Amino acid sequence: MIATIPGVWAPVVTPFAADLAPDGERFVMHCRWIAEQGAGLVAFGTTSEANSLSVTERLGLLERLLDAGVDRSRVIAGTGSCALPDAIAATAQAVELGCAGALMLPPFYYKGVSDEGLYRYYATVIDRVADPRMRLYLYHIPPVAQVAISAGLIERLLKNYPEITAGIKDSSGDWNNTRTLLDAFRGSGFRVFVGSEAFLLGSLREGGAGCITATANINARAIRRLIDDWRGAEAQALQARIDGVRETIQRYPLIAAVKQVLAHWRNDPDWARVRPPLVELDPRKTSELLQELAARGFELEGNRGPGAGGS
Amino acid sequence: MIATIPGVWAPVVTPFAADLAPDGERFVMHCRWIAEQGAGLVAFGTTSEANSLSVTERLGLLERLLDAGVDRSRVIAGTGSCALPDAIAATAQAVELGCAGALMLPPFYYKGVSDEGLYRYYATVIDRVADPRMRLYLYHIPPVAQVAISAGLIERLLKNYPEITAGIKDSSGDWNNTRTLLDAFRGSGFRVFVGSEAFLLGSLREGGAGCITATANINARAIRRLIDDWRGAEAQALQARIDGVRETIQRYPLIAAVKQVLAHWRNDPDWARVRPPLVELDPRKTSELLQELAARGFELEGNRGPGAGGS
Repeated sequence: MIATIPGVWAPVVTPFAADLAPDGERFVMHCRWIAEQGAGLVAFGTTSEANSLSVTERLGLLERLLDAGVDRSRVIAGTGSCALPDAIAATAQAVELGCAGALMLPPFYYKGVSDEGLYRYYATVIDRVADPRMRLYLYHIPPVAQVAISAGLIERLLKNYPEITAGIKDSSGDWNNTRTLLDAFRGSGFRVFVGSEAFLLGSLREGGAGCITATANINARAIRRLIDDWRGAEAQALQARIDGVRETIQRYPLIAAVKQVLAHWRNDPDWARVRPPLVELDPRKTSELLQELAARGFELEGNRGPGAGGS
Repeated sequence: MIATIPGVWAPVVTPFAADLAPDGERFVMHCRWIAEQGAGLVAFGTTSEANSLSVTERLGLLERLLDAGVDRSRVIAGTGSCALPDAIAATAQAVELGCAGALMLPPFYYKGVSDEGLYRYYATVIDRVADPRMRLYLYHIPPVAQVAISAGLIERLLKNYPEITAGIKDSSGDWNNTRTLLDAFRGSGFRVFVGSEAFLLGSLREGGAGCITATANINARAIRRLIDDWRGAEAQALQARIDGVRETIQRYPLIAAVKQVLAHWRNDPDWARVRPPLVELDPRKTSELLQELAARGFELEGNRGPGAGGS
């Protein structure tokens, strides 16, 4: 079973039309192209502007994606929400549709909430979804959500829902936190994904499951290569190569930057659009970003994707 | 027109049934009782656990409240949401139903967003609602939302939407911020409400519009008295009296504490219930809270409300 779960997942960016409605056609096209690079699809993560979408919009995009014939065992749906009924509805739908898992943010409006409150939130979702096929991936991203997932909370969920509590995306950006999780849950089957490929090789060596990373929207193939060869002689070089891309792009607002790269590759300015409160990367910064990526030797090699003749 | 807007507003707590569904009957009863105390009703603010409710649940409660015959000119609907379409739908509904205003959080998932992005968010909501009756109250609560409303953002909204940009709830807890806003917008008609009655008298003396405060769920009458007599000789004593209640209750988790006071007064344990990620105040702390309130001389005097024979 574990072998069938990809080691690299892209939280797929969500394209928007001029009226800011989600663009289902470009969405499906992009997802298919990422799947061809060997990555799994997370619809909808932070990079997807998921919390800027209504539950109805997310439902519509997920159905459209699966109707297009994408392999459901390689799709994780982001279903976390501040509102319990929204989280329940989205998770139930993801399970019903046969997705590989539900990636769930903690409810992120109230700050300083207790582990007891967070446990009740997740337990209530699991109890109401009431489907043994549910696979819960916790989403730890304190720099954004400002609400953290503790090891104690994971232990309690694993104890009471051992089959359902499947793993975590650790986007703390803190290797000490990742290592603590890897040590604590080694051998349990609980999967620890890092939220940046910067920690990929290090985490794989400690029993990590891989990464779920924004840059997999533009660099999935190279990241996948490291996943496949991480025990090989080239592993450090492969890590250095993907690090270069990551370091460059994360000097810019990440989501807007990823979208501008796609807009450039595909010669399709619609890809650059974001929903408020985000703003597009301006032309000057976009030009700088593209020049820096080129200087890093970021080759396209199949990265261009559909519509640009490069895939 | 200004005189018809109440000076004290309660962000009304939302009662939940045993299955955690919103309890419309208790909600309407509580709202009516607060209105009788002379306060306006904010459905749905932070104290209302608004972000723990789905858009559909909020819609249902608001319709039920207005169907019950509550004065719409004394109802402000909380309509902010991370997702633009949710904010648009909820705001359009509030305007359509004749509410006095829409209290809008900034989109609060992404942190470190620009004023340009926040401006686009609010401007898009205003443009899409496209109704000259809309009255926007910005909701500045950086300790919780972690996304702030700057004076520059307000200026830009006031310039481009002078009729619609009606005011702000300043829940920064920072008197310097409130005074800056009062100075900046004095004489413009832009209303500055404080988010705690601790700043009520000070803000009224500087041209403030009043307060929108959690404790108005249990202490509206006393707060209203200060609003009515703030130029009188007793003003400082009235301020000191409401300060005592505020200081006591805010040593506890505020929402859970307010609900326990209502549960106690009404001899109705259902009132104590909160939705995850919040947790109820435990019996020991509840007992401490009630004793401290009593020691402060917090008299009930009509505060008990319906169901306890005290109103």
